[in-house]
Amino acid sequence: MSATAGIDLGGTKVQAVVLDELGEVIGQGRTRTPTKGGPSDVIDAITSAVKDAMKSAKADVNGVGIGSPGAIDPATGYVTGAANLPGFGEPVPLRDLVGEALGLGQVRIDNDVNVGTLAEHRLGAGRGLDDLLAVFAGSGVGGGVILGGELRRGDHGSAGEIGHVVVRMGGDLCSCGRRGCMEAYAGRVAIERKARAAMEVGRPSLLPAIMRDRGRARMTSGVLAAALEAGDDLTHELVDQAVAALGAGIASAVNVLDVQAVILGGGLGEKLGDPFTRRVEAAMRPSLFVRAVEVRSATLGDLGGAVGAALMAREAA
Amino acid sequence: MSATAGIDLGGTKVQAVVLDELGEVIGQGRTRTPTKGGPSDVIDAITSAVKDAMKSAKADVNGVGIGSPGAIDPATGYVTGAANLPGFGEPVPLRDLVGEALGLGQVRIDNDVNVGTLAEHRLGAGRGLDDLLAVFAGSGVGGGVILGGELRRGDHGSAGEIGHVVVRMGGDLCSCGRRGCMEAYAGRVAIERKARAAMEVGRPSLLPAIMRDRGRARMTSGVLAAALEAGDDLTHELVDQAVAALGAGIASAVNVLDVQAVILGGGLGEKLGDPFTRRVEAAMRPSLFVRAVEVRSATLGDLGGAVGAALMAREAA
Repeated sequence: MSATAGIDLGGTKVQAVVLDELGEVIGQGRTRTPTKGGPSDVIDAITSAVKDAMKSAKADVNGVGIGSPGAIDPATGYVTGAANLPGFGEPVPLRDLVGEALGLGQVRIDNDVNVGTLAEHRLGAGRGLDDLLAVFAGSGVGGGVILGGELRRGDHGSAGEIGHVVVRMGGDLCSCGRRGCMEAYAGRVAIERKARAAMEVGRPSLLPAIMRDRGRARMTSGVLAAALEAGDDLTHELVDQAVAALGAGIASAVNVLDVQAVILGGGLGEKLGDPFTRRVEAAMRPSLFVRAVEVRSATLGDLGGAVGAALMAREAA
Repeated sequence: MSATAGIDLGGTKVQAVVLDELGEVIGQGRTRTPTKGGPSDVIDAITSAVKDAMKSAKADVNGVGIGSPGAIDPATGYVTGAANLPGFGEPVPLRDLVGEALGLGQVRIDNDVNVGTLAEHRLGAGRGLDDLLAVFAGSGVGGGVILGGELRRGDHGSAGEIGHVVVRMGGDLCSCGRRGCMEAYAGRVAIERKARAAMEVGRPSLLPAIMRDRGRARMTSGVLAAALEAGDDLTHELVDQAVAALGAGIASAVNVLDVQAVILGGGLGEKLGDPFTRRVEAAMRPSLFVRAVEVRSATLGDLGGAVGAALMAREAA
């Protein structure tokens, strides 16, 4: 039997899966992403997660795919600008390092959002569609585009950068340094920054208490979901702004692409669930050129990235 | 020899060309678009323009293409919502009506912007590129997308609607009824509306005098170009806003598509020329995810639509 491993290299954890020929997840492994050290520590974490996944699958693999943050050159296997990973300030030949560590020649690499998009198209909410736009709202907002059944990488490998669609000229500063990006309104990090700024000038909020209760230092998607649930005014206001920005930005992309469907996922999407998807769909409508486009919640959740990385490796084989 | 005719059905004129096998324009015809009557009057104008073009080409044609305003169904040949054409409030089977009038079975139809995009890709500024986004800034702002050498029509035939990308959430009202569209800042009709509103509340401007001198009732692209030249403050301000909106909206589309180049054309693009293209390129830069994308001025000008319509007919044959 021919199995493939997939790795989702995240800022907080490394998720590995082993996929069988039918696309079933037959093994999983997970390690914490090191916050100190250098690339070799990251490689160790990846190797350990993949070995755990192979052990639980009771299977060897003949190919590995990696979904990585940062800018990826799939041809050379280098990762640049993955600033959250230790020692990744300079370009890292991640594909070849992982291949050597695992003793495998068949290693593929692409960015985390592209592999997540591939997974939703092949096995998730976008199954059977020709064209779709996937939007992952988490710490930031990423996206991927499937056209004619294939992932569009684009001329510089950066197609699908929906987080940096401008929804307000000269608007809020984004963490990317640009102004008015969708991510500056809809990314969890941007929401947290705005919430802290509002509280600093005296705006009351349940957020600090909820974070304390949950032992969280950051306003995770779970914290935001709980604050909405508890009726926190500030959180409702910021999430309303996020929904409005997602509506405008996704509608803009659909006006240019005219895809069959939009798939909405990511940490925020998962924690807030289908009601959030329906709100984004409603926010898109006033800006949509076509009468309607189907908007679906992503179905693969947390494993989507790793599954997509394994699919990429399998399809390349 | 095998020649093809192309028709650009505009709001003010019907432009026809005959194209030889090498893509050379060997004949032209032009009539005024009727403002009264019904579809049969429009068909008469088209027939007359095509016959003039065939006469000047001294050639018969074995196929005809039509670029039309409104929403086009290329499969059925119906045009809907081309409200500027007399009797086109209801859907009109334009393809078949033109075919009958000319006695030709080989008639193809698509929207005017798609055929203009095709022309710039096959014979104009986009020659040889795999991927491009064409933006035509005229009365409104239209666009077309070429991916992998082929025109992307999209799931509802409305891909490339760049004029209705949102550049400012909740912003200016667009003639389409939506808010904050790029066209609401960068379309000539929107610019004229804003200029008139400013003058009504006492803002001084050279525009009325320039219109009078040129015998124009509307602020055509030529009038705007002359007012810029004359240093009219109001026109400079409105064109600055148009450039900013084009920069943000086109950069947004490029962030999603990651195409090799952007082609800028349309009445405003033509009259203001390459300096305008360079200004739009500079305005895109702060919002662009990739370091740079090539921005080129369209080269086929006024004939682009008709040439593209002929190319469409030829490629379908």
